[in-house]
Amino acid sequence: MKHILKQHLTVTFQYEVYFSENIFSIDNSLFRDALAPYLKPGLVRQLLFVIDEELSLAHPGLLKQIDVYFQGQVHLALVKEKIIIPGGEVAKNNPYYFNQIVEAIHRHKVDRHSFVVAIGGGSVLDVAGYAAAVSHRGIKHIRVPTTVLSQDDSGVGIKNGINFFGKKNFLGTFAPPIAVFNDYQLLETLSDRHWVAGIAEAIKVALIKDATFFEWLRDQVDGILKRNADTMKYLIWRSAQLHMDHIASGDPFELGSSRPLDFGHWSAHKIEQLSDFQILHGEAVAIGIALDTTYSFLQGYLNECDYKEILRVLQAYELPIFHQLLKDERVISDLLDGLEEFREHLGGKLTIMLLRAVGVGLEVHEMDHDRIREALARLKKLDEVQQQRKLVSLPD
Amino acid sequence: MKHILKQHLTVTFQYEVYFSENIFSIDNSLFRDALAPYLKPGLVRQLLFVIDEELSLAHPGLLKQIDVYFQGQVHLALVKEKIIIPGGEVAKNNPYYFNQIVEAIHRHKVDRHSFVVAIGGGSVLDVAGYAAAVSHRGIKHIRVPTTVLSQDDSGVGIKNGINFFGKKNFLGTFAPPIAVFNDYQLLETLSDRHWVAGIAEAIKVALIKDATFFEWLRDQVDGILKRNADTMKYLIWRSAQLHMDHIASGDPFELGSSRPLDFGHWSAHKIEQLSDFQILHGEAVAIGIALDTTYSFLQGYLNECDYKEILRVLQAYELPIFHQLLKDERVISDLLDGLEEFREHLGGKLTIMLLRAVGVGLEVHEMDHDRIREALARLKKLDEVQQQRKLVSLPD
Ligand SMILES: NC(=O)c1ccc[n+]([C@@H]2O[C@H](COP(=O)([O-])OP(=O)(O)OC[C@H]3O[C@@H](n4cnc5c(N)ncnc54)[C@H](O)[C@@H]3O)[C@@H](O)[C@H]2O)c1
Ligand SMILES: NC(=O)c1ccc[n+]([C@@H]2O[C@H](COP(=O)([O-])OP(=O)(O)OC[C@H]3O[C@@H](n4cnc5c(N)ncnc54)[C@H](O)[C@@H]3O)[C@@H](O)[C@H]2O)c1
Ligand SMILES: [Zn+2]
Ligand SMILES: [Zn+2]
Repeated sequence: MKHILKQHLTVTFQYEVYFSENIFSIDNSLFRDALAPYLKPGLVRQLLFVIDEELSLAHPGLLKQIDVYFQGQVHLALVKEKIIIPGGEVAKNNPYYFNQIVEAIHRHKVDRHSFVVAIGGGSVLDVAGYAAAVSHRGIKHIRVPTTVLSQDDSGVGIKNGINFFGKKNFLGTFAPPIAVFNDYQLLETLSDRHWVAGIAEAIKVALIKDATFFEWLRDQVDGILKRNADTMKYLIWRSAQLHMDHIASGDPFELGSSRPLDFGHWSAHKIEQLSDFQILHGEAVAIGIALDTTYSFLQGYLNECDYKEILRVLQAYELPIFHQLLKDERVISDLLDGLEEFREHLGGKLTIMLLRAVGVGLEVHEMDHDRIREALARLKKLDEVQQQRKLVSLPD
Repeated sequence: MKHILKQHLTVTFQYEVYFSENIFSIDNSLFRDALAPYLKPGLVRQLLFVIDEELSLAHPGLLKQIDVYFQGQVHLALVKEKIIIPGGEVAKNNPYYFNQIVEAIHRHKVDRHSFVVAIGGGSVLDVAGYAAAVSHRGIKHIRVPTTVLSQDDSGVGIKNGINFFGKKNFLGTFAPPIAVFNDYQLLETLSDRHWVAGIAEAIKVALIKDATFFEWLRDQVDGILKRNADTMKYLIWRSAQLHMDHIASGDPFELGSSRPLDFGHWSAHKIEQLSDFQILHGEAVAIGIALDTTYSFLQGYLNECDYKEILRVLQAYELPIFHQLLKDERVISDLLDGLEEFREHLGGKLTIMLLRAVGVGLEVHEMDHDRIREALARLKKLDEVQQQRKLVSLPD
């Protein structure tokens, strides 16, 4: 009788990310086909839909289309009631929406072999994914991301969460979906602001993983801003792939101790918060990329040519590299406090991803506060120049 | 650009289950030593304790002992406030206690690199484990089970949960702890009723996995009922080991579709519920074992000798094999409905574990309602005989 028993568990998760269009059009069988392996003769699985309200308003035919799509299915039954929740951060801030989904799962007896399908931006996906993950210790979950950011980053990943006590993602889990459908057509109604914001995550992942993709991004500004479909499809596809590889090759559930932060994200999270979420996540990431790129240059890690090109690309995409909030000394010192909070969050040892070159990251464990201030001052200036140019060029 | 990206993730979890005594006695370094690999020079990790109220009343020195145990530790800091929550099902029924733990994690800034330590029966472990699992997407969690049932079964496993909408474990996750400490000394204050109830899980696992262990259990009734320490230590150790092996060899997160129910548990869950939790989980499991054993015999799967011996062993341990509730026709039909609910819960295909012999399980996908009634009638009779014997033997 040994006094220690050792437990060793290995858990494997698999899922597919599909790229398609009009996925609920009756003649696109992709979604139905993807569910087929989960169905069994003689049994009926339920589908509970959770849908982003603005998305559903922008696509008025969608709800009806979904009903028609599943009509006559023998092994699939739609839950009649669809849960419509407002998009954006409010979905994660107000626990009402989490409760609403859990309550619907209970009321309609949606079980572990049925499906919760979430359609919407990253916020709706995060709350629906969390509700599905903890109901019955995990109901099968399907994601249909409808923003650039959720299609090229968050929606193809494995995290979910809601805000609590004013803290971003205070409650949440790691819970891989069983399938993700990136439907390009749903993106078309997205505002320009959200269209552009999601590109920041593609630039981020290119900068630390794939110089070729960054060059491609540099060369495609026009097509993307003119909403060329094929260009955006490739951007999303490649960014999703790089994000997925990153998750699979690392420590997916972040069980280890020194998880390096996502590039540009230590300040991004804090900037979002300091602006009361007036600055979008993608926008804050753009500012964060600009800041850490400038810092990398000032520290001598990154050469001037790369540094300038990165800032030029951000600006070309009309992504912010600075925000007037950051002119306020109190905000700057809050931002620097954020660095300390991250140190705590990481268990005392800070790990920050910087750049050695385009496509090549560099981890550091310390950041110099004065250098950060210097970087902010540079970005402020660059931003002013850009604003003036815009003013000057307005007349023509 | 392929239209499908496949994601494949492998996640590994490891933890130790330690068997010891007086784990918070200053000269027992086991607990401190187990934490050592998680500590880093120059950093301080927090420990937030969540403690079963009745346990703490039964061991009045415990809280103080914990304070002393961690005094002078340089890399570990106790959160001053200890969360004391009532033991038993109320801890899981009232969301107040879940919120209380989450709120303390927030208020004391307990991060992913700190520890939530839960000490108590299965109920307190379940709610504390759930709160730790979803806070910051998973704080490191340590369990100190203090009932026979939680030391020999639930506490060494990976599930947690709370009740919601009156449904057992409606919310919960699979979240392996980082360590479990089975402290025999803490068990000594347990009531006889709870002492005996936890044995049902050992009998259950022996019956489907290990005939030798069942024979051992058959021969140790006296020692166990007289609370012989070495006998109970072996019972817990072997039962924990069999339960752990079962988890590791199967589908730990129950992602697959046809998870066979635990032996004796389809009716146990329903009986607990129908009695408004007046019947303890372990007691309900004993009745469930008796029922499925009798059913296995009546169906010709199990020979009469094994059948009789199993019932004799349950009765020798003073575990119930029947309950007066089950005399009521409405309760019986609720119980049979429970079978249908499980069919739904398993996604339409019922899988029930029965017995082919002691130590040899048998999975079936259908149960005959009349046979179940016949089994209940037999158990009712056997139980009456036993009650009469007790009455007769009372005077001496
Ligand atoms: N889980 C993760 O790993 C992860 C990673 C990064 C970000 N996030 C989270 O994602 C959230 C941001 O997600 P987001 O950028 O997708 O924004 P969002 O979900 O907040 O959506 C932005 C707005 O667009 C609307 N909308 C969505 N799709 C639309 C469409 N096709 N047409 C018109 N309007 C549409 C929404 O209703 C909302 O008002 C944040 O909460 C962030 O924390 C999560
Ligand atoms: N997570 C799982 O895998 C799993 C598996 C089986 C059961 N469970 C759950 O476990 C719960 C039952 O747990 P349990 O049987 O340990 O009972 P319990 O947690 O309900 O505790 C029983 C009673 O004993 C008290 N107590 C605990 N330790 C004591 C001690 N050492 N001395 C004196 N009193 C003590 C408690 O305060 C409580 O009043 C149920 O909710 C059940 O659903 C969970
Ligand atoms: Zn991001
Ligand atoms: Zn049990």
